[in-house]
Amino acid sequence: MQKTSVAPNGEEFLIPHETESKIEKKKIERITQEQIAKGRKIITVQGLGFVGCVMASVVADAEDENGNPFYYVHGHQRDSIRSFWKVPIINKGIAPVSSSDPEVPEIFNRCVNVKKNFRATWHNYAYEVADVVVVDIQLDATKPAFGEAEKGYCDLSAFRNGMKTLGKHIKPECLILVETTVPPGTCERVVKPIIEKEFTQRGIDIEKNPPLIAHSYERVMPGSKYVASIRDFWRVYSGVNEKSKTFAREFLTNILNTENYPLTELENTNASEMSKVMENSYRATNIALTLEWAKFAEEVGVDIFKVRDAIRMREGTHDNMLRPSLGVGGYCLTKDPVLANWAKQAIFGLKGDLKIAINSVNINDTMPLHTIDIIKKDFPELKDVKIAILGVSYLEDVGDTRHSPTETLVKYLNEFWAIVKYHDPYVEYWAEMDRSDIQKDIESTVKDADVIVFAVGHSEYKQIIPEELINFNGKKPLIIDCSNFLNDNTLKTYKKLGCKVKGLGKGHIKNL
Amino acid sequence: MQKTSVAPNGEEFLIPHETESKIEKKKIERITQEQIAKGRKIITVQGLGFVGCVMASVVADAEDENGNPFYYVHGHQRDSIRSFWKVPIINKGIAPVSSSDPEVPEIFNRCVNVKKNFRATWHNYAYEVADVVVVDIQLDATKPAFGEAEKGYCDLSAFRNGMKTLGKHIKPECLILVETTVPPGTCERVVKPIIEKEFTQRGIDIEKNPPLIAHSYERVMPGSKYVASIRDFWRVYSGVNEKSKTFAREFLTNILNTENYPLTELENTNASEMSKVMENSYRATNIALTLEWAKFAEEVGVDIFKVRDAIRMREGTHDNMLRPSLGVGGYCLTKDPVLANWAKQAIFGLKGDLKIAINSVNINDTMPLHTIDIIKKDFPELKDVKIAILGVSYLEDVGDTRHSPTETLVKYLNEFWAIVKYHDPYVEYWAEMDRSDIQKDIESTVKDADVIVFAVGHSEYKQIIPEELINFNGKKPLIIDCSNFLNDNTLKTYKKLGCKVKGLGKGHIKNL
Repeated sequence: MQKTSVAPNGEEFLIPHETESKIEKKKIERITQEQIAKGRKIITVQGLGFVGCVMASVVADAEDENGNPFYYVHGHQRDSIRSFWKVPIINKGIAPVSSSDPEVPEIFNRCVNVKKNFRATWHNYAYEVADVVVVDIQLDATKPAFGEAEKGYCDLSAFRNGMKTLGKHIKPECLILVETTVPPGTCERVVKPIIEKEFTQRGIDIEKNPPLIAHSYERVMPGSKYVASIRDFWRVYSGVNEKSKTFAREFLTNILNTENYPLTELENTNASEMSKVMENSYRATNIALTLEWAKFAEEVGVDIFKVRDAIRMREGTHDNMLRPSLGVGGYCLTKDPVLANWAKQAIFGLKGDLKIAINSVNINDTMPLHTIDIIKKDFPELKDVKIAILGVSYLEDVGDTRHSPTETLVKYLNEFWAIVKYHDPYVEYWAEMDRSDIQKDIESTVKDADVIVFAVGHSEYKQIIPEELINFNGKKPLIIDCSNFLNDNTLKTYKKLGCKVKGLGKGHIKNL
Repeated sequence: MQKTSVAPNGEEFLIPHETESKIEKKKIERITQEQIAKGRKIITVQGLGFVGCVMASVVADAEDENGNPFYYVHGHQRDSIRSFWKVPIINKGIAPVSSSDPEVPEIFNRCVNVKKNFRATWHNYAYEVADVVVVDIQLDATKPAFGEAEKGYCDLSAFRNGMKTLGKHIKPECLILVETTVPPGTCERVVKPIIEKEFTQRGIDIEKNPPLIAHSYERVMPGSKYVASIRDFWRVYSGVNEKSKTFAREFLTNILNTENYPLTELENTNASEMSKVMENSYRATNIALTLEWAKFAEEVGVDIFKVRDAIRMREGTHDNMLRPSLGVGGYCLTKDPVLANWAKQAIFGLKGDLKIAINSVNINDTMPLHTIDIIKKDFPELKDVKIAILGVSYLEDVGDTRHSPTETLVKYLNEFWAIVKYHDPYVEYWAEMDRSDIQKDIESTVKDADVIVFAVGHSEYKQIIPEELINFNGKKPLIIDCSNFLNDNTLKTYKKLGCKVKGLGKGHIKNL
């Protein structure tokens, strides 16, 4: 029986056979020739994940001053059970990601159905015809021990395989533009040797045709400006040689709004790769500091959020101080310091951890346990305590659950045999936990709960009326605000209703 | 023989006797009565150090809409050998601090000689007549072990004595406005009990007259905007009770440019005290992170300063990333995290360090040793190696040497028996090191040196022509750039002149 890949909407797609593969190759061949005849360069995007699929559409959407697209884009996705569905879905003009950004469905429809210069494929022939391959392979950090990010590492094997595929297929003059966030040193010490080896095996003289490899990282933000966060934002790039840098600059200038967001060229790919993981380490550290002080504030009657506002009055120097919350989630801040720390030692052979960055990850990762500590002050035995959690994603008004701090919270509450229910208006299926039991409404979530945790500051939760919530609940639950979500008046209302109220970093509550 | 106190200009002043003291009291009495008759309130500033003296002049300079000063200011300085000279110097209308800010001499002359509403005294009677006492007593953190800030503490004894003096002398309705950066908890747990005890001993009913105590920290920056950094800047304040808060708000509104820089009131003095040490911990952490990455960059051919510029393109979120340098100096970033960490444990009895903040201090404090490591790669035995250091202060174009990283550098080079010369156009006498042997000219500093360290980025050093410097030197010294002071062209020139060139965080130098 032919295997199938199932899209999130339930639609099933057959994974292609050898016959389909031959037809697909012919198709790519024909399209490519037509497009070259139109004067377009061929771009292949490797990996149609969170970044790759939108990047591919941004590349396709780019036009010259006469409104003609610069490029034809092959979006490449391997024919795996997990992800193959993206190919036929995209080829209908539908985005394979859900987003609150209205530009996302628009740009997919426009490029696939109107401009007809973006098409997804699973066939490696797309690499053979490419002038540029944009690498958007997912690359994770593995943290084998909770709260010990110093033991974290990066398994490069899938990434290496991806590079081998490119080395076997691309034209010698094709630019490999790595957009994936990689451990510093990857382009020079991982990508380059692999491509050189494959080129040499193919009989390509790497002295005459040194591989063209560049690095330029994205600064994608999920949410309402998803597409703009790729196209209308500052970019950093570099290459392993001058030709790669020039080629990357030309390409990025064509596809991005570099007039308003000028490019920054760095001297080498180590610098560009370091820049990305350093900027995220900077943010991770910024948050970790506030988490430590939030705990201090709780104990001494201080509202850390008001202190933060006072500090942020210093425009230009202190106004970007981040705020403490349940914990730190998402794909970048949780892993990039680990990539850097691992690369320093494993790729460059240097000694010693990047302590500040790594300690920050540890503080951030373990932060959800602090909310459990708060609960335990009132419920020392968590067994059978009913806990309702409002918010499962890692960010306000976004359904992204990657490395969500609520995940850590729920896992540990489960370990203590608490009875946990959770709600999130943006999440139907919690992929990381493989759970479909996300409550559909607040009422059923909080009913009978001993503790109600405001975990994520979704807008919907702002409309909750305390009297109603307590009515739904039917008890006088412990209310915990993890994200400065409830203002002092609301907190007072809950107190008047007979609830005990606590808050992360909100030591002033006891005096309200 | 009567003791004397010597001003920095060499002028000697006799420390007053009992007779002078009686005359002084009469004088304060007379002046105060005259000033009250003019409708002015009496403000006494306790401590005429770096902050207190300028704060006193800003208070005196404040006027109502008709151009009439709100206040008469007694600046109080104890009659110690080290500091008494400030009293007669100020009373000539001369600032007791040197500064590049032209407003400093102007404001002292204007208030003392023209408006005649600012006068310095050593007599405690100045406290008895005060409506507000602004506390600017110096308060240090002690770090008993180098690189182990977690062992740091704050000796409050002098501060406590200062508070006892106030408790013995002030009117019950006088506001004590603590401007000193204090360990969180100080106003509530140190100042308040002391004043209450003294009041009670004086027969004042503290139920009817609870002491009025507020906290509002300064954000003074040495340099060309010294006065403006007090007057034209955002302020945070709070008080131990509502009356104190109201009183503090009125006072601060009168003296500061609150129209352009609105005040922020926090709920309690713990919050206000925490705000100050947290904002400086934030900056200290920001720098510590860059120091760790600077070392990483050095090893992998990356210029951390260009990476920083690339990151800082992200306006509003990343553009305040600080830069690595020889180390971190000055009065605030080096001690404030220690005050917080100590207060958490010693004042509030809580467990555990503020790790991120304390590790940052340790990284920052020990950073000058990294420059020694750089030197040692070329001179493994430092004994008798001649080292010229350009820059002794802790900040560009400022003569402030408090906790200067050059101090650590010189101390450790001396321990290794290196032969060290140093130069700084802004420093004549190096108080912390008790040294007068600061070179007067660059020529004599660098002559014959094996190593020239660009330690501080003073403007004067920017005009140095490489050929001239090497000519002065007479050798081919190792050049070390500790503060991104030499651009790539200058670095190349030094290389062409036969020098070995290294730089903190500048791993790209070897490829230049």
